[in-house]
Amino acid sequence: MNQGRMIVIDGSNGAGKTTVIGALRDHLEYQRREALFTREPGGTPIGEKIRKILLSTDAGEMAPVTELMLFAAARAQHVREKIIPALQAGKVVVCDRFDSATLSFQHYARGLPLELITTLNDLAVDGLQPDLTIVLDLDPEVGLARVGERGNNLDRLEKETLDFLHKAREGYLAQARLNPERFVVIDASQPLDNVLCEVLQVVDHLMQQ
Amino acid sequence: MNQGRMIVIDGSNGAGKTTVIGALRDHLEYQRREALFTREPGGTPIGEKIRKILLSTDAGEMAPVTELMLFAAARAQHVREKIIPALQAGKVVVCDRFDSATLSFQHYARGLPLELITTLNDLAVDGLQPDLTIVLDLDPEVGLARVGERGNNLDRLEKETLDFLHKAREGYLAQARLNPERFVVIDASQPLDNVLCEVLQVVDHLMQQ
Repeated sequence: MNQGRMIVIDGSNGAGKTTVIGALRDHLEYQRREALFTREPGGTPIGEKIRKILLSTDAGEMAPVTELMLFAAARAQHVREKIIPALQAGKVVVCDRFDSATLSFQHYARGLPLELITTLNDLAVDGLQPDLTIVLDLDPEVGLARVGERGNNLDRLEKETLDFLHKAREGYLAQARLNPERFVVIDASQPLDNVLCEVLQVVDHLMQQ
Repeated sequence: MNQGRMIVIDGSNGAGKTTVIGALRDHLEYQRREALFTREPGGTPIGEKIRKILLSTDAGEMAPVTELMLFAAARAQHVREKIIPALQAGKVVVCDRFDSATLSFQHYARGLPLELITTLNDLAVDGLQPDLTIVLDLDPEVGLARVGERGNNLDRLEKETLDFLHKAREGYLAQARLNPERFVVIDASQPLDNVLCEVLQVVDHLMQQ
């Protein structure tokens, strides 16, 4: 049986996460690797309900610690109900955002204490750590312009200020500097084919380890 | 301005919480004390959305730590958005269940580690502690009968539930023993008038302090 691997695709909004994840899906299918594609917040029926609360704009201002606890609650359910069983079955788990996003947005951008975030995250992940976190790095202004072209209505998190997004970006880069053995930063301002090529290379490298 | 006070009404299902809270509402109105009546989980628009997830049975089995984090998230929002502002405005806050219920059900009955519950609760309440927690104490079999359950001839699953409720009851009594300065246990098997009379006495005593 193949060894289970967990890969997180993360980074700024508009950096191309969805496209990259689609390419990874084709790639792993071609390699006949069993894979689970999932996302945070969400990934389970309970987690998707929590996601709706997190993204909703109609229930008044959310306290930062409430937000953090909701992310942690969704992650706790996700890890136990889906991710750990998939890894135990030897699957590749590809997750759209994970703990790296919580640290970037809640600690580096929003300024919540690292210890508080670590406490909640440790309870949520129960010892699990992704094997590889790919950060698609992009200037937030470029990312916002790309998202704007999609014509979507912005959700509560996307409405954050540009300054907030710049701090979050720095947060991703800081995490990658601190954990070079399990983070890879890919320049998402490159032409799409180059981005995809780099992603598939680092994923294949991980699979061969 | 009056000093804000926080009173929690808690105890077994069927012990008469709703009736007691109604009587307290009339009593405080008669005394012209400004009061906020609220409940957990819930109490805010975000908290009521979380309550729906907690009470729903259609999204699969919830991990115990997820449940605990959702209770904590709802409480964190409740404390910051409603309870602390009401106390600062000198109101009496009457809350239907609070941290005492989490400890009874999640720790004493479900067996989750005390430290985990305390960590999450401390983050949620941000130093706030109710001035008075009134435990309406009742044998769970009597309580179940009152809320319309069969009471007798319980099947295996219902007996497990009963065992769970017995442990939760012991949890309330243990908390009251450990914190006699801020817990009052009232025998809810007495005639209703006696129960209400005792509740109003301890509340008036608190107000005079």
